Amino acid sequence: MNKIEIACLPGDGVGIEVMASAKQVLQKAADMHGGVQFSMTDFPWGSDHYIETGAMMPEDGIERLKEFDAVFLGAVGNPAVVPDHISLWGMLIKIRRELELSLNVRPARLIKGIQSPLRSPKDFDLIVVRENSEGEYSEAGGVIHNGQNEIAVQNGIFTRKATERAMRYAFELARTRGKKVTSATKSNGIVHSMPFWDRVFQETAKDYPDIETSSAHIDALSAFFVTKPESFDVIVASNLFGDILTDIGSAVMGSIGIAPSANLNVEGTYPSMFEPVHGSAPDIAGQGKANPIGQIWTAKMMLDHLGYTDLGQAILDATEEVTESGIKTADIQGTSSTEEVTQAILSTLQK
Amino acid sequence: MNKIEIACLPGDGVGIEVMASAKQVLQKAADMHGGVQFSMTDFPWGSDHYIETGAMMPEDGIERLKEFDAVFLGAVGNPAVVPDHISLWGMLIKIRRELELSLNVRPARLIKGIQSPLRSPKDFDLIVVRENSEGEYSEAGGVIHNGQNEIAVQNGIFTRKATERAMRYAFELARTRGKKVTSATKSNGIVHSMPFWDRVFQETAKDYPDIETSSAHIDALSAFFVTKPESFDVIVASNLFGDILTDIGSAVMGSIGIAPSANLNVEGTYPSMFEPVHGSAPDIAGQGKANPIGQIWTAKMMLDHLGYTDLGQAILDATEEVTESGIKTADIQGTSSTEEVTQAILSTLQK
Ligand SMILES: CC(C)[C@H](C(=O)O)[C@@H](O)C(=O)O
Ligand SMILES: CC(C)[C@H](C(=O)O)[C@@H](O)C(=O)O
Repeated sequence: MNKIEIACLPGDGVGIEVMASAKQVLQKAADMHGGVQFSMTDFPWGSDHYIETGAMMPEDGIERLKEFDAVFLGAVGNPAVVPDHISLWGMLIKIRRELELSLNVRPARLIKGIQSPLRSPKDFDLIVVRENSEGEYSEAGGVIHNGQNEIAVQNGIFTRKATERAMRYAFELARTRGKKVTSATKSNGIVHSMPFWDRVFQETAKDYPDIETSSAHIDALSAFFVTKPESFDVIVASNLFGDILTDIGSAVMGSIGIAPSANLNVEGTYPSMFEPVHGSAPDIAGQGKANPIGQIWTAKMMLDHLGYTDLGQAILDATEEVTESGIKTADIQGTSSTEEVTQAILSTLQK
Repeated sequence: MNKIEIACLPGDGVGIEVMASAKQVLQKAADMHGGVQFSMTDFPWGSDHYIETGAMMPEDGIERLKEFDAVFLGAVGNPAVVPDHISLWGMLIKIRRELELSLNVRPARLIKGIQSPLRSPKDFDLIVVRENSEGEYSEAGGVIHNGQNEIAVQNGIFTRKATERAMRYAFELARTRGKKVTSATKSNGIVHSMPFWDRVFQETAKDYPDIETSSAHIDALSAFFVTKPESFDVIVASNLFGDILTDIGSAVMGSIGIAPSANLNVEGTYPSMFEPVHGSAPDIAGQGKANPIGQIWTAKMMLDHLGYTDLGQAILDATEEVTESGIKTADIQGTSSTEEVTQAILSTLQK
């Protein structure tokens, strides 16, 4: 029997609720398979931990996570009690950086039974490969305080290594899919980092003559995610551009509550981390209303990564069967609770 | 009789076609008014000028523009013959910078007869106030060339002066409208410039206790432009964020071909410049297919700025009457040519 060690970090707010759902689904998937066991260890880190200890996670937290095969995260942040920059940089971004999770892979597609806000959406199925370690989210910079003459400087840092790594991953991924890669740029307005990005894209593309390439400026590309999402296959984007595009992708799918993501350590030096795109949603936390599908679809991405693609597929199929039957939370025009959706997925999986 | 001097810069591609339309509309508006004359001087600057002379506009171009009451621009760029960074930074961005057009004001709303790609759009009516002089579009930065260790650095520069100027304009504008200002931020990921932006927003807001304020991260805000554009009134955004939001706004209105913008010199030291949001669209240039509404609505914004708000309103009303009657270009599900739409607007104005 294969034993897979999963670190579960429910985090804050709805993270706790949707984590509970997804763990049940993972457990059921393992039971169905018979040959694998998911050993899930909970770490109650997050804003409450911060209030008790002054830190979002213990000092040896990252070291402890490194012992696992994968990290499964709910959501981080409770701005009413901990400022966002402390909670996010003390846990979510800290894990992304210190486990060297250099890519954030986020699919967007139509799911049966979930209505897109678009009038007549074509059947899109795209994946954004987001650079996850640097770029616009760099800590370099500062503010020169001088009253009315204050100046803030924010340094975006783009390395060849990280840029090319994201692009190569996108090209390899496109080979397994629609064989198209679109690069998100803004070299007409951002004149150092983005022309560099374009050049690395052109150079890297030479190694993938079988892949069709294109570039689009982030303004136009954001609009295209609304007007013609079906024209994309794999999109490679910087940290900020990937962040923006994937929220638009979620909106166009029908709810941010369903969107999954994988934060990958592509070198395999440390475990990868899996988290839904949505946040901790303090406004609906604790009410049993949260959509568990983002976390469950994220579990599927984790299973794919761990090599259990058949189980991942079974989970997504069961989920679509449930949404198609109309058992849905309020964010996707349903009336069911987190628990009802979870139970429906569990019993569909059983079949 | 008041004489208003307008510098017309058709530029490239469809810019030339839609400029011809909008000039006719301006002429007709002046005839209707009786008390004003628009003296329109053409400057054939752009990519052809670059091919002939090596520059997008003559050396004294900016000085010549300063003599006018307003600058009316079509679109800039013909990437097949002039690289984008040369054409845009040699003309569009050059004008924005050298005429000190520190704000880019871009409305988005539903227009009668133009179908939004949204399934059930509520009647939204928002204005993005985009900082137009600095921020992410700074020329500071560079690339350290060192083979596989290459690093590109892009410095975003945010001054108190420009940041506060954009925000004050947004607050003043909100006072004339829905009394709400939303600040586009990303301080949870971009840790120097965006917390600075947030702080200036909070400080500036104190002077406008009558205005309701909120902040939203650019990823979520981009999604909200799709899921609930009706919840916004005035949005204040950095150069890059404003760029992205206004393209999404155009998409949600139904076509980038209809979106207008005003590049304002708020101090009144130099003329302001008015240009549609769309580009030169080389793919459809010269075919008589371009949608003239973006340029015509831009003419309305110029008239508003020059103090002829009644004429501006007449133009927009005539345009909506025409779109409602179904006389529309292909980008908004019509079959009419640029010329047919223009003629229809002219004869509606006549009435
Ligand atoms: C062409 C480009 C430099 C420009 C910008 O980013 O400002 C355009 O997208 C716009 O919005 O006017
Ligand atoms: C919470 C925030 C820092 C984060 C990001 O911008 O990366 C989130 O928006 C995401 O997309 O995972």
